[in-house]
Amino acid sequence: MTARVSILGATGYGGGELLRLLLAHPGVSVVHATSRSQAGTPVGRVHRNLLGLTDLEFSAPSIAELAASSDVVIGALPHGASAETLGACLDAGLKVVDLSGDFRLRTPALYQTYYKAVHPRPDLLDRAVYGCPEVARDAIRSAELVASPGCFATAINLALLPLASSLVGRVQVVGMTGSSGSGAEASEGTHHPTRAGTLRPYKVLTHQHVGEVVQLALQQGATDMALDFTPVSAPLVRGILVVLTAALNAPVNTEQVERTFREYYASHPFVKVLTSREPECASIAATNFAEVRARATGDGRVHVVCAIDNLVKGGAGQAVQSLNLMLGLPERSGLEWTGTWP
Amino acid sequence: MTARVSILGATGYGGGELLRLLLAHPGVSVVHATSRSQAGTPVGRVHRNLLGLTDLEFSAPSIAELAASSDVVIGALPHGASAETLGACLDAGLKVVDLSGDFRLRTPALYQTYYKAVHPRPDLLDRAVYGCPEVARDAIRSAELVASPGCFATAINLALLPLASSLVGRVQVVGMTGSSGSGAEASEGTHHPTRAGTLRPYKVLTHQHVGEVVQLALQQGATDMALDFTPVSAPLVRGILVVLTAALNAPVNTEQVERTFREYYASHPFVKVLTSREPECASIAATNFAEVRARATGDGRVHVVCAIDNLVKGGAGQAVQSLNLMLGLPERSGLEWTGTWP
Amino acid sequence: MTARVSILGATGYGGGELLRLLLAHPGVSVVHATSRSQAGTPVGRVHRNLLGLTDLEFSAPSIAELAASSDVVIGALPHGASAETLGACLDAGLKVVDLSGDFRLRTPALYQTYYKAVHPRPDLLDRAVYGCPEVARDAIRSAELVASPGCFATAINLALLPLASSLVGRVQVVGMTGSSGSGAEASEGTHHPTRAGTLRPYKVLTHQHVGEVVQLALQQGATDMALDFTPVSAPLVRGILVVLTAALNAPVNTEQVERTFREYYASHPFVKVLTSREPECASIAATNFAEVRARATGDGRVHVVCAIDNLVKGGAGQAVQSLNLMLGLPERSGLEWTGTWP
Amino acid sequence: MTARVSILGATGYGGGELLRLLLAHPGVSVVHATSRSQAGTPVGRVHRNLLGLTDLEFSAPSIAELAASSDVVIGALPHGASAETLGACLDAGLKVVDLSGDFRLRTPALYQTYYKAVHPRPDLLDRAVYGCPEVARDAIRSAELVASPGCFATAINLALLPLASSLVGRVQVVGMTGSSGSGAEASEGTHHPTRAGTLRPYKVLTHQHVGEVVQLALQQGATDMALDFTPVSAPLVRGILVVLTAALNAPVNTEQVERTFREYYASHPFVKVLTSREPECASIAATNFAEVRARATGDGRVHVVCAIDNLVKGGAGQAVQSLNLMLGLPERSGLEWTGTWP
Repeated sequence: MTARVSILGATGYGGGELLRLLLAHPGVSVVHATSRSQAGTPVGRVHRNLLGLTDLEFSAPSIAELAASSDVVIGALPHGASAETLGACLDAGLKVVDLSGDFRLRTPALYQTYYKAVHPRPDLLDRAVYGCPEVARDAIRSAELVASPGCFATAINLALLPLASSLVGRVQVVGMTGSSGSGAEASEGTHHPTRAGTLRPYKVLTHQHVGEVVQLALQQGATDMALDFTPVSAPLVRGILVVLTAALNAPVNTEQVERTFREYYASHPFVKVLTSREPECASIAATNFAEVRARATGDGRVHVVCAIDNLVKGGAGQAVQSLNLMLGLPERSGLEWTGTWP
Repeated sequence: MTARVSILGATGYGGGELLRLLLAHPGVSVVHATSRSQAGTPVGRVHRNLLGLTDLEFSAPSIAELAASSDVVIGALPHGASAETLGACLDAGLKVVDLSGDFRLRTPALYQTYYKAVHPRPDLLDRAVYGCPEVARDAIRSAELVASPGCFATAINLALLPLASSLVGRVQVVGMTGSSGSGAEASEGTHHPTRAGTLRPYKVLTHQHVGEVVQLALQQGATDMALDFTPVSAPLVRGILVVLTAALNAPVNTEQVERTFREYYASHPFVKVLTSREPECASIAATNFAEVRARATGDGRVHVVCAIDNLVKGGAGQAVQSLNLMLGLPERSGLEWTGTWP
Repeated sequence: MTARVSILGATGYGGGELLRLLLAHPGVSVVHATSRSQAGTPVGRVHRNLLGLTDLEFSAPSIAELAASSDVVIGALPHGASAETLGACLDAGLKVVDLSGDFRLRTPALYQTYYKAVHPRPDLLDRAVYGCPEVARDAIRSAELVASPGCFATAINLALLPLASSLVGRVQVVGMTGSSGSGAEASEGTHHPTRAGTLRPYKVLTHQHVGEVVQLALQQGATDMALDFTPVSAPLVRGILVVLTAALNAPVNTEQVERTFREYYASHPFVKVLTSREPECASIAATNFAEVRARATGDGRVHVVCAIDNLVKGGAGQAVQSLNLMLGLPERSGLEWTGTWP
Repeated sequence: MTARVSILGATGYGGGELLRLLLAHPGVSVVHATSRSQAGTPVGRVHRNLLGLTDLEFSAPSIAELAASSDVVIGALPHGASAETLGACLDAGLKVVDLSGDFRLRTPALYQTYYKAVHPRPDLLDRAVYGCPEVARDAIRSAELVASPGCFATAINLALLPLASSLVGRVQVVGMTGSSGSGAEASEGTHHPTRAGTLRPYKVLTHQHVGEVVQLALQQGATDMALDFTPVSAPLVRGILVVLTAALNAPVNTEQVERTFREYYASHPFVKVLTSREPECASIAATNFAEVRARATGDGRVHVVCAIDNLVKGGAGQAVQSLNLMLGLPERSGLEWTGTWP
């Protein structure tokens, strides 16, 4: 028996990736792919890869219709709007996975700090589980509301988790991202003529993903955790690479760091711990896999590199990984695609 | 029961794509991935996407070992070397699919014309079936030796087949290709600094794929068939786009042409006939699908655009499609991946 | 003494290139760079390369102010608006170079055919000189209104001119272009995520540049001239490559074709006739140079490849070349930059 | 009267950029462009942008011939070979600018540490001036041997110089580079299929440019200076972007940092200090300009971003800037080109 899943906000890149993954998922049946503006349009008209491969059309069901037809909804809605719509879904008894940032931070105050807005549904924050399966697999299994991590946050989390309890003080992070992270709407920042040949920082030291990373590290035992994070727009389509250095509460050498990472991720099928080459975007593009490499810096601190696909492990794929856990399905179900080289 | 398949020459991009497809193929078990120079190396060391996802190592078995362990071999060997090795495999009783150009042309004379070399195994040419499932599905089913088409040839074939019997005279073709078509070896033509910002014709009017396209069109009934083909190196990684115009033995209008194409490809699951947008590389990248659009030019001739992924439908994917037919498996088996957008 | 030049519509890519070229031009002084929406903004705020290198600000002068302060205006305005504004400038006694398509076609009927609009100033069409210096150098010298050719038209013109009087019948052209040809406004067609990895035809057989190419070829003596032109969006920023084949009124061989091209362009400093490698975009990017190579096809027809930079030789550079001629300056003045490799 | 300059090792990208800049330089005449393997070949055959624009051929003169014909030589030779050849030129009385790393470090021991080789001419190290005009303009004016900085080192130097005397402790640097930095030889790291879609760290914490950066900072008064430097290969052709954070001996705020940078670079024509947008590669590509922006991190440390073109300000352009100073020419001579946008 397959689970009935609806995708809310299905015309963007997050929605497109969810459609791609779930239409081919052996344990899931896609009921609705919602869009107010595109209701009635075949999904393959918008997501060109799907042309001719599905009869599904975008639709605009009511909450009641969603509740009657679906077991779970996955939201790929804009921040703010997401909490309202998904809150109504929760109220109607649906299980929910949210790709937006609305339920990632634990308090309305943190939300206001990082999203510059009043949280529409603060009553739900306590029910949300931060959907990083590499740290909260069991909690996700029993969750009714999963807040799937942000793309940059995912890469930084994976780089920090094995040593999180030893972290002390500010972490220096530079993260580079492909253009698909900016979404399906054409904008100046993703205009090909100027994006194709540039590297360009943005939101320097002010990116909203800092909040969820710091929150998670503190939960894991980090001390005086802070993040100096510089995002950089890079001229590729898919992929995030983060490079960070961090101080620990005791000096380490590279051998110890590598062992810690290997042990931490031994039971996590999507994180590849590298020791003989560097993580890079091309080898995991369009997959749910992460590559991570950690080493000591020589003065007792740690240096970590992590590569993910921003739309899959950093978005729809990780959400499906949580969905699998919520549904009692194998964690890798629907996420086995290995990617290509090149 | 799964078929036992070995991949010969498995370190290149063709071999890598065969590995990617066949390791995930539900009806096939990969026995050997051969490489003389890399024997003993894990395949994930070379094909970085596969790192950690398979225990397979490159190996260097003898023909006898191949014959004892495998049902079919797929060759991704260089032209010339391919005919010798695969000929020995055939002699040893193996079924063979060849990605090289060695068995595509029907006569030693044609081979010499297009490959500037004496054919090493002319005795086998009569046993070879040209592996274009869209024209030879039944012959492939019973073939012992399938010569899988070239990448450019595939795109041109798909653009010409529905009207092949009506073609008269020279066809004008411009074909653009991504850099992965040049293979895994670094070379001047694929050096990133000069490839990334250029469009550059090569082998103008002399590309070796002309031979197999003309041969197929003549077999299908074309008259006075010739090809003015200009390949162009373009700054993308994956994809071929061909644009062609052709004269027919009777004038046609766009409606007729579209109907002919739709009818021709109705039973072929990998060819999408478009009428409301243009074929393009991004929507079929890394998949076995083709997009094709045909229209009348206004003076009675036909204009066709076709997009494929050069390494999949133009290489390993089409070979697996033939393999499926040879093995009595569903034609789409192992080739269902829809690709991404973007 | 330097000529006083104003640039109308200076915020787009055409305007930016004009600014770049004319601010460094030894014989020209830039008086105004007009923009209604950006009046008062330093030009380096919009054209980032110019940041800190000029004190010029965008301005919004009246026609009278332009006439009082300038000797020549160069327009980089949208089609339609261009004819109105530049017509007023002409009426006020200014010399004019127009980068838009408004004055390229000789009759209002042709304009309506290709631009789907009624020409705003048909009275001026007779006074316009088509600004292709490689065919109309003397006429440009004495012109008061120069209609600078379109980007694709320039590349096709240069490929056809040496043999134009011998052309018979339809010419088959495929032209590939970089994304800067679509202008400075972000749009779906230039959205990096989907543009960066694709080749995508557009305006198939309907591109508006066909009109001016056919008109010029007919003026040069071509017979039954028509153009089957397929533009293709390619994933580079700058550059156009056109590939064409054409029938002639008498068979030619490659040696004859090469000689004809060499002789034709011997006195034209910006067209490089190649015979030992192919034209390509990277070697002329951001310059006013063109590379062209011609050969016989083997059945008496001719095959030509031409590469230009769409914004320079196909836009602002060619306009400055005309400006130089109008002002009695050396044709190469301000256009000597050689470009880079890579 | 123009200075007579020869370029040693002129077939690579460094040599090509020197040729491009010096052939158009108003105060310089290029005497020799040396290459052993390409002697007799027109330079435009190798550097495709120069095709038809110069009659110069590569040559292989003896040291004596160089000394007799030239005033200055600029070397773009490989490390190691450079010191030997340029040492002989110095011995013969020529002035020398060296693009290689051979004369950048002050001691043979440092050279051995960073270049893993015994220095061929340790006797010359005391005579070398580190060719960073933004810190050593006067010393360069009277130098006979200028060691032009490395590409990454240039970007990091420009980011650190205004605050160098206040630096305390380790600086965290991530630097991203275009593929042209790897030179003209095709290699795995610059193979288009795998480079075009990736971000890939290399030489993590071990890049040889660390040595010259630390040396310069210490000379300027930094305390306990060390560098954790992570270079990253990015999929663009030209450009370096570095992002760094550093501790200072006293807390600063952003206003102070910006003022310090503005004052420091007020007299340096090639460094643009930004405060309202971020530095990026596209706006300075192929130019000798740098863009730099500095801010306080909020905990008293400083965060700096710097963008340069790796081959110009990070290579040939900076060397020509030093050459201008050595020759008593205006510092900007031959380096005025503004670049393009896009």
